[in-house]
Amino acid sequence: MKEIIRGNIIDAPALGELRCLPGGCLVLEDGVIREVLETLPEGAELPVTDYGDCLILQSFADMHLHGPQYPLLGTCMDVPLLEWLNRYAFPTESRFADPDYAREVYAMLAAELVANGTTRVVMFSSLHTEGTWLLMEALERAGVTGYVGKVNMDRNGSPVLQETTEQSKRETLRWLEGCGRFSRIRPILTPRFTPSCTDELMAWLGELAGERGLYVQSHLSENTNELAWVSQLHPDCQRYWETYAKYGLWKDHTVMAHCVYSDGTERRAMRDANVLAVHCPDSNTNVCSGIAPVRRMLEEGVWVALGSDIAGGDHLPMLEVMSSAVRTSKVRYMTAGDAPLSAAEAYYLGTTAGHRYFGAGDGFAVGDRLHAVVVDDSTLGPKGEMELPLRLERAIYRAKREQITAVYSDGRKIKGR
Amino acid sequence: MKEIIRGNIIDAPALGELRCLPGGCLVLEDGVIREVLETLPEGAELPVTDYGDCLILQSFADMHLHGPQYPLLGTCMDVPLLEWLNRYAFPTESRFADPDYAREVYAMLAAELVANGTTRVVMFSSLHTEGTWLLMEALERAGVTGYVGKVNMDRNGSPVLQETTEQSKRETLRWLEGCGRFSRIRPILTPRFTPSCTDELMAWLGELAGERGLYVQSHLSENTNELAWVSQLHPDCQRYWETYAKYGLWKDHTVMAHCVYSDGTERRAMRDANVLAVHCPDSNTNVCSGIAPVRRMLEEGVWVALGSDIAGGDHLPMLEVMSSAVRTSKVRYMTAGDAPLSAAEAYYLGTTAGHRYFGAGDGFAVGDRLHAVVVDDSTLGPKGEMELPLRLERAIYRAKREQITAVYSDGRKIKGR
Repeated sequence: MKEIIRGNIIDAPALGELRCLPGGCLVLEDGVIREVLETLPEGAELPVTDYGDCLILQSFADMHLHGPQYPLLGTCMDVPLLEWLNRYAFPTESRFADPDYAREVYAMLAAELVANGTTRVVMFSSLHTEGTWLLMEALERAGVTGYVGKVNMDRNGSPVLQETTEQSKRETLRWLEGCGRFSRIRPILTPRFTPSCTDELMAWLGELAGERGLYVQSHLSENTNELAWVSQLHPDCQRYWETYAKYGLWKDHTVMAHCVYSDGTERRAMRDANVLAVHCPDSNTNVCSGIAPVRRMLEEGVWVALGSDIAGGDHLPMLEVMSSAVRTSKVRYMTAGDAPLSAAEAYYLGTTAGHRYFGAGDGFAVGDRLHAVVVDDSTLGPKGEMELPLRLERAIYRAKREQITAVYSDGRKIKGR
Repeated sequence: MKEIIRGNIIDAPALGELRCLPGGCLVLEDGVIREVLETLPEGAELPVTDYGDCLILQSFADMHLHGPQYPLLGTCMDVPLLEWLNRYAFPTESRFADPDYAREVYAMLAAELVANGTTRVVMFSSLHTEGTWLLMEALERAGVTGYVGKVNMDRNGSPVLQETTEQSKRETLRWLEGCGRFSRIRPILTPRFTPSCTDELMAWLGELAGERGLYVQSHLSENTNELAWVSQLHPDCQRYWETYAKYGLWKDHTVMAHCVYSDGTERRAMRDANVLAVHCPDSNTNVCSGIAPVRRMLEEGVWVALGSDIAGGDHLPMLEVMSSAVRTSKVRYMTAGDAPLSAAEAYYLGTTAGHRYFGAGDGFAVGDRLHAVVVDDSTLGPKGEMELPLRLERAIYRAKREQITAVYSDGRKIKGR
């Protein structure tokens, strides 16, 4: 079916670049973008959904978050990372051994993602196989697409949250077998982070990733205490990234969250391997990790996108993560002199940079299935002429789920039907 | 009329201290708190408004914000303070010469304050007399209480926004004469900041403040370029605060926004004079001013409260300002080692510390007119037992206007009627 969606289109074809089409049109065929037009074609006979003066933005890609930490969201922000994991995150995740609990919580999480316009994710589950399937199911049912990983952790967990090496391998295989039934959510291998996985498990996961062509996600250089720990565990590795590389886990499309303390060498290794660095500004501040050198990564050609990192991060809505990225970049500017991010750059990082992970083109690209949100910003300030780039900036700082009146994911309308 | 309001009461009698009363009661008489009870008294015959499992929190006091910058909110975050003022803030404020525009915008602002539970403010208007009355009127009509100041600025403004010294004096007197009609909004003298006011005007305002017993608000030590400018303008003053003190403007209840670069001497001067330092975390980051030493101020006995400082700040809801204060204090912890703020401390700063300015007691104090918000946090996470302090923290990080289901200001219900 062919149709037209019309409104004030703003997309981000490149970092810091906006394409603004007031009253522009997206011509869709079965959810796939066929044309992007500046005006409604005269005499067009296609059905038109006219969003009037609303903004039509790219939907958001949340490239790092922990589904089973959703119950913690906005609480327990009183200790730094490693203590926070042991005291709060691990006990919370352990509850997802209970399928009923998992079903209830994941339905809420999926609904909140959709309400806030997040249509693509790369997400950590817990180590529970059934719980992970339930998370994938909840996301797929709500219309969210992307990758979810059953966590592997066979050391340094807690009495309530840890596997043996054998269990971890066996359950990973069992989990992968059960993933065939999902069409829009795919599995991704997920060693929690180097301190959580024995060398044996890391090596096994690296081989599995290679054999089956699976992507990998983990954490990197988030916190100075973590760095010291990793170098104790792997005295042969000069830098944290090498602990993944030596087991075949550092490769094209590997997702590494944080990268706060990645130095020039580690950043070069990211760029060279096409590893995605996920910047999680809220989390880095909340658990006192540090202020990531995002500008430097971008200048050096590292692939960077954004993550909410709930529940270390406190903002699930990616618009709020974007404004946090700008704010945090200003802290970096004040403390290290790196040029701050603009709102347009944050928009690119929260949209195009993430969507590329899934094979999408830049901005609203012809040939891609539509991922978009419609923002009614009429209540965000007094009436009056305002240029589209300013309206985008205001939406990033001010719009909440109530302003997001429609969401399209993978070519289908999943909010505002 | 006597009545009872019942719910999960959480107030902040002191910095970092919470009083939590699950199913507690506030006994009111004509809007004044007569008793705070742990349970509903048996056989009580008073009408009861039962908020069930909702939280009953103190309402919020926004101790520094610029009414006529509301149209800028969430936009134009791309330059530092002084350039931001000239390029964006001054032209925006100049539009408030138009009463129709002022009426429309101020009604929106007042409504948004109420929707978000802010019931007390200390606010800058523009330099326009009529516009300032319209702001006071809009706030009073909506149920917001507090202080509003017509801005004085007779130098270093812009062609579109500046007065002569004579105009500034004359209009200030005319404005004060017209303020008698307001019952819940009072005038406060408002020299914009030292660079905006000639010595003659400062001296005149200081005398007026003394003669009429008026409070004063201004800005202090916000930005390093501003500090350099002030010391050029007042070579006789060692520190910024002295430029106010030498004209009688530094006194009990003087409100000084920011104080990012106030050193030990300036902070002692605040404490000794009972000057209120208003911390505006979002604004300080957005316009790249710096990270204020809030912990040090508190440890040294300085009176500190919070301000949204819109539109340098991008969050009007004080719950969001509280979470920003915690987050920013963690940046300070990471960069200067000062202990971060807890959620409970941020709650105190956004409530009791501000309400004290208006003569209120600590927390929900017997004898005070009620200023409270009711928060329905049932949609903020999965069901399950959670202690009240954690629910408060979650509300600070997660609650939006939609969760604030009722607001009481000055003993009257102004939202949720």
